[in-house]
Amino acid sequence: MTAARLSIDLDAIAANWQRLARLNRAETGATIKADAYGLGAGPVARRLAAAGVRSFFVALAEEGAAIRQALGAGPRIFVFSGHMAGDAQTLRNLDLIPVLNSAEQMVRHFESLPDHAFAVQLDTGMNRLGMEPAEWSAVRALALPKGPKLILSHLACADEPQHVMNAEQREAFVEMTDGCDAPRSLAATGGVLLGPGYHFDLARPGIGLYGGAPFDEALPVVTLSLPVIQTREVATGEPVGYNGTWVADKPSSIATVASGYADGLLRSLSGKATLWAGDTACPVVGRVSMDLITVDVSTLETVPDALDILGPHQGVDDLAAQAGTIGYEILTSLGARYRRRYTGQTA
Amino acid sequence: MTAARLSIDLDAIAANWQRLARLNRAETGATIKADAYGLGAGPVARRLAAAGVRSFFVALAEEGAAIRQALGAGPRIFVFSGHMAGDAQTLRNLDLIPVLNSAEQMVRHFESLPDHAFAVQLDTGMNRLGMEPAEWSAVRALALPKGPKLILSHLACADEPQHVMNAEQREAFVEMTDGCDAPRSLAATGGVLLGPGYHFDLARPGIGLYGGAPFDEALPVVTLSLPVIQTREVATGEPVGYNGTWVADKPSSIATVASGYADGLLRSLSGKATLWAGDTACPVVGRVSMDLITVDVSTLETVPDALDILGPHQGVDDLAAQAGTIGYEILTSLGARYRRRYTGQTA
Repeated sequence: MTAARLSIDLDAIAANWQRLARLNRAETGATIKADAYGLGAGPVARRLAAAGVRSFFVALAEEGAAIRQALGAGPRIFVFSGHMAGDAQTLRNLDLIPVLNSAEQMVRHFESLPDHAFAVQLDTGMNRLGMEPAEWSAVRALALPKGPKLILSHLACADEPQHVMNAEQREAFVEMTDGCDAPRSLAATGGVLLGPGYHFDLARPGIGLYGGAPFDEALPVVTLSLPVIQTREVATGEPVGYNGTWVADKPSSIATVASGYADGLLRSLSGKATLWAGDTACPVVGRVSMDLITVDVSTLETVPDALDILGPHQGVDDLAAQAGTIGYEILTSLGARYRRRYTGQTA
Repeated sequence: MTAARLSIDLDAIAANWQRLARLNRAETGATIKADAYGLGAGPVARRLAAAGVRSFFVALAEEGAAIRQALGAGPRIFVFSGHMAGDAQTLRNLDLIPVLNSAEQMVRHFESLPDHAFAVQLDTGMNRLGMEPAEWSAVRALALPKGPKLILSHLACADEPQHVMNAEQREAFVEMTDGCDAPRSLAATGGVLLGPGYHFDLARPGIGLYGGAPFDEALPVVTLSLPVIQTREVATGEPVGYNGTWVADKPSSIATVASGYADGLLRSLSGKATLWAGDTACPVVGRVSMDLITVDVSTLETVPDALDILGPHQGVDDLAAQAGTIGYEILTSLGARYRRRYTGQTA
């Protein structure tokens, strides 16, 4: 029973999807790349399919293959990285839709899988994935008659609603897709919240499903509880942990819990994170090490069997702020050693 | 073929173990906790067993169970977290040796598994795991007649050879184990390098096996190559990536590669890391995103199919410096989506 326990509320994920779907004027898909942001792509995909999701988005063909095996035939699975060299067999056999990002990928796709579904990604200013305006102009007459299942682009600043780039990207997207019959998609979670002008025909939220900013109304999805291995008293002047970066300035009780940066609790949380014993905050002291974290539990009358690092008092964005990162990285870093327990309806 | 390729040289791990074993005057074990620092505990354990390792160290009983299944009967497997509530059946059935960290764990062990092997961890000043001097004094007369397989402690500052705490911890360890017949262990990689005074009866190196500091003579073990999805030209003034944190100050070629912080390439590498095309360094520009990294490849005549982030020009400690962390965290963060390829003798 040494392993920390990660609890994942599938019903909360479904409820978050439903809330976003109500805000969205168009079809609402779901982005479940990176193992559903670290929460387990199989269980999450099945729960979302039961809730009504018909279009899923992953990063890599290999991820799409695993999702198809979890879901069976029916739902559409789009692959953001498109059609890479060597992907043809996986795309065909698992019925995946590559999002073609370049003329090069388009040529590869039409040559190797001429009758297979595809989507197109356009770059509207983020300069990360997708075809530039000139590139798209050169190939659109070739692509459109073949009926792309979706034409999409991605917003660089959707988490900053006032950023000028949102409207610029929207305008570029409208211009580049003018006269296209294919369904269009621009919004992920942030784009849904920007309003109807960004919804087009399909939205593909990710982070909002999993309880993260910028979707403030999201229900929390994960709790993470770290078992206490032992508690010790340290005297004034004694150091704790690697390189003695923390030294007790008064007699203190220090608990050592079984989790560390090898479990995705980033080393940048050293001396900065908070763990919780019920309603009481207990500060991390010293360095986060590979498998262990030391915590000042001096204020507790009784040290419980486990301390919470994600729970009612502290969500993924709170922990991210302590680590100097974003909630997305907290989620995708959740470690393989945790015992994952799924609650809610597991379709 | 979208997934990045992580190559792990098992022969280099074995060679690093042999080098450390030559420096060490006593038995040399191997620490393979956290999935052998992210490299795959099964293949690594089998290779090291073939090289002659007879004592392995893991963090959790669950990890020990997996190692036992990989190795079969014979090698000793020590569990650093000791005997936690609920561990008895796993410890017994898989023949694992808990490293008892407290009187509480000792009582639990002697009550539930009275005839089962055990080791003892003493705290000599790190204040993280192990019994305090007073606690040990109270139970040693009970423990020693039962023949602990090992008495160990852990150095907090072994990577700083001049740190006063090394000698202090050594002295405390000698004092606390005075008159004990049991074999003793104080050194991990750093302790082996501190010299014979720190070797006692068994050393248990970890990071040095995997090519990391402070074992400067270690052979590199991992290479990691990230496939290029597409390359684009950006004009002066154009932003790249989330929130436009990088803006081209001249016409530039930007490659987008298929890997990101969900693969353990920490978000703190944003705008700081270097990728390599053979001998040519290519700087990461903009934010590392979940599945993608953007790289300035303007100096390349031809953009290769993949760019290296760990390889001959850049080891785990180099990348760690770019991320503001240590090589250990780079290794343990290596992601689940990579295609792992093992080279060398796979025993």
